[in-house]
Amino acid sequence: MRSTIIHSIVSALLVFCVVSHGPAGSIEAPVSDATQECLTCHSTATPAIVEDWKKSRHSVVTPLQALGRPELHRRVSASNISNHLSGYVVGCAECHTLNVENHKDTLVHNEKKTHLTVTPRDCSTCHPAEAEQYEKNLMAFAHVNLVGNSVYSQMMHSINGSVTFDDRKTTISAPDEKTQAESCLACHGTKLQVTGVKKRETDYGEMEFVEMSGYPNQGVGRLNPDDSKGSCSSCHGRHQFSIQMARKPYTCSQCHKGPDVPAYKIYSVSKHGAMFSSMEKEWNFNNVPWVAGKDFTAPTCATCHVSLVTDPEGKIVSKRTHQMADRLPWRIFGLIYSHAHPKSPDTTIIKNKDGVQLPTSLDGQPAAGFLISKQEQDLRKDTMQAVCLTCHSQGWVKGHWDRFQNTLQTTDSSVLTATRILFRAWDEKLAGKDDLFDEAIEKQWTEQWLFFANSTRIASAMMGNDYGVFDNGRWYMNKNLQDMLDRLFFLRSAKKSDR
Amino acid sequence: MRSTIIHSIVSALLVFCVVSHGPAGSIEAPVSDATQECLTCHSTATPAIVEDWKKSRHSVVTPLQALGRPELHRRVSASNISNHLSGYVVGCAECHTLNVENHKDTLVHNEKKTHLTVTPRDCSTCHPAEAEQYEKNLMAFAHVNLVGNSVYSQMMHSINGSVTFDDRKTTISAPDEKTQAESCLACHGTKLQVTGVKKRETDYGEMEFVEMSGYPNQGVGRLNPDDSKGSCSSCHGRHQFSIQMARKPYTCSQCHKGPDVPAYKIYSVSKHGAMFSSMEKEWNFNNVPWVAGKDFTAPTCATCHVSLVTDPEGKIVSKRTHQMADRLPWRIFGLIYSHAHPKSPDTTIIKNKDGVQLPTSLDGQPAAGFLISKQEQDLRKDTMQAVCLTCHSQGWVKGHWDRFQNTLQTTDSSVLTATRILFRAWDEKLAGKDDLFDEAIEKQWTEQWLFFANSTRIASAMMGNDYGVFDNGRWYMNKNLQDMLDRLFFLRSAKKSDR
Amino acid sequence: MRSTIIHSIVSALLVFCVVSHGPAGSIEAPVSDATQECLTCHSTATPAIVEDWKKSRHSVVTPLQALGRPELHRRVSASNISNHLSGYVVGCAECHTLNVENHKDTLVHNEKKTHLTVTPRDCSTCHPAEAEQYEKNLMAFAHVNLVGNSVYSQMMHSINGSVTFDDRKTTISAPDEKTQAESCLACHGTKLQVTGVKKRETDYGEMEFVEMSGYPNQGVGRLNPDDSKGSCSSCHGRHQFSIQMARKPYTCSQCHKGPDVPAYKIYSVSKHGAMFSSMEKEWNFNNVPWVAGKDFTAPTCATCHVSLVTDPEGKIVSKRTHQMADRLPWRIFGLIYSHAHPKSPDTTIIKNKDGVQLPTSLDGQPAAGFLISKQEQDLRKDTMQAVCLTCHSQGWVKGHWDRFQNTLQTTDSSVLTATRILFRAWDEKLAGKDDLFDEAIEKQWTEQWLFFANSTRIASAMMGNDYGVFDNGRWYMNKNLQDMLDRLFFLRSAKKSDR
Repeated sequence: MRSTIIHSIVSALLVFCVVSHGPAGSIEAPVSDATQECLTCHSTATPAIVEDWKKSRHSVVTPLQALGRPELHRRVSASNISNHLSGYVVGCAECHTLNVENHKDTLVHNEKKTHLTVTPRDCSTCHPAEAEQYEKNLMAFAHVNLVGNSVYSQMMHSINGSVTFDDRKTTISAPDEKTQAESCLACHGTKLQVTGVKKRETDYGEMEFVEMSGYPNQGVGRLNPDDSKGSCSSCHGRHQFSIQMARKPYTCSQCHKGPDVPAYKIYSVSKHGAMFSSMEKEWNFNNVPWVAGKDFTAPTCATCHVSLVTDPEGKIVSKRTHQMADRLPWRIFGLIYSHAHPKSPDTTIIKNKDGVQLPTSLDGQPAAGFLISKQEQDLRKDTMQAVCLTCHSQGWVKGHWDRFQNTLQTTDSSVLTATRILFRAWDEKLAGKDDLFDEAIEKQWTEQWLFFANSTRIASAMMGNDYGVFDNGRWYMNKNLQDMLDRLFFLRSAKKSDR
Repeated sequence: MRSTIIHSIVSALLVFCVVSHGPAGSIEAPVSDATQECLTCHSTATPAIVEDWKKSRHSVVTPLQALGRPELHRRVSASNISNHLSGYVVGCAECHTLNVENHKDTLVHNEKKTHLTVTPRDCSTCHPAEAEQYEKNLMAFAHVNLVGNSVYSQMMHSINGSVTFDDRKTTISAPDEKTQAESCLACHGTKLQVTGVKKRETDYGEMEFVEMSGYPNQGVGRLNPDDSKGSCSSCHGRHQFSIQMARKPYTCSQCHKGPDVPAYKIYSVSKHGAMFSSMEKEWNFNNVPWVAGKDFTAPTCATCHVSLVTDPEGKIVSKRTHQMADRLPWRIFGLIYSHAHPKSPDTTIIKNKDGVQLPTSLDGQPAAGFLISKQEQDLRKDTMQAVCLTCHSQGWVKGHWDRFQNTLQTTDSSVLTATRILFRAWDEKLAGKDDLFDEAIEKQWTEQWLFFANSTRIASAMMGNDYGVFDNGRWYMNKNLQDMLDRLFFLRSAKKSDR
Repeated sequence: MRSTIIHSIVSALLVFCVVSHGPAGSIEAPVSDATQECLTCHSTATPAIVEDWKKSRHSVVTPLQALGRPELHRRVSASNISNHLSGYVVGCAECHTLNVENHKDTLVHNEKKTHLTVTPRDCSTCHPAEAEQYEKNLMAFAHVNLVGNSVYSQMMHSINGSVTFDDRKTTISAPDEKTQAESCLACHGTKLQVTGVKKRETDYGEMEFVEMSGYPNQGVGRLNPDDSKGSCSSCHGRHQFSIQMARKPYTCSQCHKGPDVPAYKIYSVSKHGAMFSSMEKEWNFNNVPWVAGKDFTAPTCATCHVSLVTDPEGKIVSKRTHQMADRLPWRIFGLIYSHAHPKSPDTTIIKNKDGVQLPTSLDGQPAAGFLISKQEQDLRKDTMQAVCLTCHSQGWVKGHWDRFQNTLQTTDSSVLTATRILFRAWDEKLAGKDDLFDEAIEKQWTEQWLFFANSTRIASAMMGNDYGVFDNGRWYMNKNLQDMLDRLFFLRSAKKSDR
């Protein structure tokens, strides 16, 4: 106990010295011998990574120093960290030689057991709360929920498969692994699987390297060689792993910018986004906790969905969470209809009334038993609104939220209309029901929910209203319905004339 | 008179002291007792707003100090401001308890008559010239000109209405108020209408709050509870109200980014936009007047359309205006054909040759009596070109402008061709003439002008040429015509086979 | 020789004095009398240009000083520069009165022979290596390769021509010169051709000015009045000509953002782009050489394609090149199929097996004799990968590259399927073969390669994977094929019913 106190004092002093007096990027803090050895070669072999790391907080603060900070200001959530790690800055060896026994990608590299991939489980040594939350995060299951879902597998097939034409009809073949990896799985995460070991001549003599399928990848639901899920560097880019980067919306835009989930684009036309873009350079993206009004004057993605936020007097507005749905009552994108969030992050267990792995049926009935309760939704709504209320009045927030809930209804209703047109095409044998995604009218139906209804809902949620009208929003929802109607008409007519 | 001089000297000294020596965001300047009382609770109730305001110029400079600056450097346009306001910084009470008698949203709040909404009329206390100009600005009529125009009402109906399907045809119902508010009216402005008063339990005991329909909203043509129009915070975001934010293009992008009016997107691919993005952090967005070449080396939206700009020697290049059309000879977006700007900002009074509230007829004839003269157009062109000429030669500017005028003609001609295809569909009863916007071929026609011709014209005006070719520009104009032609062909054929 | 050494010492000292002690933008360095005379009037006539130039390196460093820097740190590539130029900073007269005899746009202006346009040949006085490389750059031939190619001329005709409708069919007329200039040729470059001389009254009395068609323009392949090609200010914007601007991706986005070549958009959703956007303000964009890891921690366009990059110890990673294809084995956009880069930057000389000026036939056979060899491709691949390897392991780079090569195949295969559908339409006389681009189904075919396959390939190359799925990527490739198939079906049916 006494030693802990002394530790705390010493580490507080160290933080003061290092952080206050050390020039940015310098390494006055103690580097372990093991890391020093890595640096000897890698300063030449992959020099820019090393420089990048030197700019990181990891390279100048030891876990012991980090633990010595007041709790609210800590970036580590471990209550203690084993002695052999805590006294050195977090360098190459600290992460890449950790938990080697659990890593299928471990290999002897320069006489030391080393693994290529660093995983959330490795990071949990110092950041256990974040890793544990992330395990329960829908995003950790991004690979599983896509690949393990029969409907979404069919969709991937229709998007990534190769199409041929033989004068009357087209045929689609199964997508190859490389295409899947750089298409859907780039964001959802690949499965990293060791396929062998290869010797290669290097500047330092012949060396052995692990070979893995699905590599490289940084998807949020990556299946790792230690059986964990996800990749912290999806958001905390290697090798600075900065909180600054994760707090800026550009990071989220890597996966949330396309027409299926244009969150970044919508943010950027919102008042919040305009304030961020205009004022960004005057804001502090590194402070922990993140102080609303002082460090920033409009939220970024992280403010509402992830960060520990306090008011200027230090009162906690929202706790840090890496289980993002904690603040989300509704799931508003990626699925056919909006619905209460699933209870489990593993959505492959869901069955709708028709026995399909979807949270609603094709005609919009929720698979209620698998979804959170109204009570839980209200709790999450309150958690989210706490952030809004640091700047906005209750009347303001209520007015905004009422519109949002209304938009969930109107967009769901619009998707139902598209579904009914599709049902009619199926009934009249103008399209085949077996594959949901392979024909032109089915692709129109898919865009109705995946692009247009989704965009309109996200625009509503984030007040990027311009986007919700003309930029893949309501204009396209109603245009698409008329286009589907005309196509139904043309398909009927062409079928008749074909006879 | 003498007191004015003393005032000036004192206030100049004060500005010097406060601005030079006060730490950023500090409040050394005198805060009124009334505002102090607001801050007591609101530092806890809505803490981030308060912090935001502390970063504003309003919080550190009194109107008296502002009035003491040399005229060209002033941000206030009032010649004098009443004593009870001028000696204190502009805080909560100064705005929210102003003109209470004219505000339908006034309520006794903490024993003081207070209104929720601050309007251009309130701001005109210190900024009368800006408010007066804005009243004559087309944007002030953005709500009126949309809702009060029969053609545009029909368009809103077709975009925001809810569509159902009954096996043969679709039916569209009238849009609900919440959808309108977060769709078209988010930018155009809602009507803020007091609907009642509600008691709510707060941390400070039970309190009464005004309830308003159309709230929240910051649209440029908002109808306010004091019968004024617009919202200064559309561009000067609350509660910093900074000139910096209004001068950056992100602000304009809130409403000018979608395919109907992609001004921001076009700017960002122009040479001007590339210079802004690359050099922004080295520019001065706070200086008044704004010095071309010194404070910035390429224009933003505000430079050409709004700001007071001088050359490095202090000669005025263009006067500040909040009546943006002052520098615009042509209206190039939002309407079917380009045309000389309307004389009145209230465009609901216009009647074209067919008696419709449009500045041209469907076949392109201008409603000339309602539009500005050639002479007035030339004047406005010269005002605009004065900005160009600080960097560009006369030959350069003429070459650019000639192309722009040519593009107005070619895009109008392209819209006329689309209109003729639509007329043909109407004539052959392949589409119904009663609603201009409800059928697929009519939506194609709408995109021809609202998206493609508009985009091409704006790209021409702002030299975002890449956009004018493939990004909703000429490629789509000519593609859409062929798509309309094919649809005409298919509609004919399907109609025959339907019989 | 001795004088060279003295020169070097003196100029090194001068650089030290000027650059270290001169306030930014000041002009302590010697300005020539000729330039001084220009400034006298132009400080008033075009004041913002002058200010912009004052912020340039040109205005504070003389060529002599520049030559005195260590070779790796030099921004000039000349080994010596004639005495009358080298002792003065690079001002108005230094460029605009250079090589007057070769410039068709030379005119006596204020008693001095002066030309309006400054060209790469003029810049080559101090930057000969860059000018020479650029002459061999595909971009230098951007005008020639477009206008001089029969297929692309037809495409321009279909995009920029004016369409009329006469109840049954549409007719397209040839595009006018002004439209061409602000459409395709805005990026590709116009032909600057002197058409006359015009007298104009100015503040300094009556003066003569050159008139040119195609003016203004800054396209990369502009045909100049001195018979050179291109415009350095395409990327190094006037009149700062900064290296900073050319190194930031915004500059490239001027021409590489639309759906035909969305390189900027893809970069901005990539991990590299997210790091740039988040960290940009902490990076050094002015350092020469550009040090990976130190000056930046993720590449911009310039890093991979143009810049002189070293590692932190000064070892050259890649040499500066203005012949961008030097690092590119494949041409992946703008053409129907991906293919090995052409040997000559003049692609009008290519003939495919059908005698058409295309690097492949319509069914994908490469015109191999005109394209670089496998060996040359491997060399270029290694040059490019050297940049990757400063941060990434060999396994990482190989994994990425394998996917990229796979995507070239799958996208080419997808284009071939679209081509086969089009062939079928031609065979059945449902579309006319004479013009490749004028009918709706042909425009769909064009989008298959020009938009969707291109986007997917660029997304693969730059790891902007989100873009390669839904944002004009694979989703649209396969959707477009089904839309083409349906159209084929409808065209057949409508043709039957038409009889």
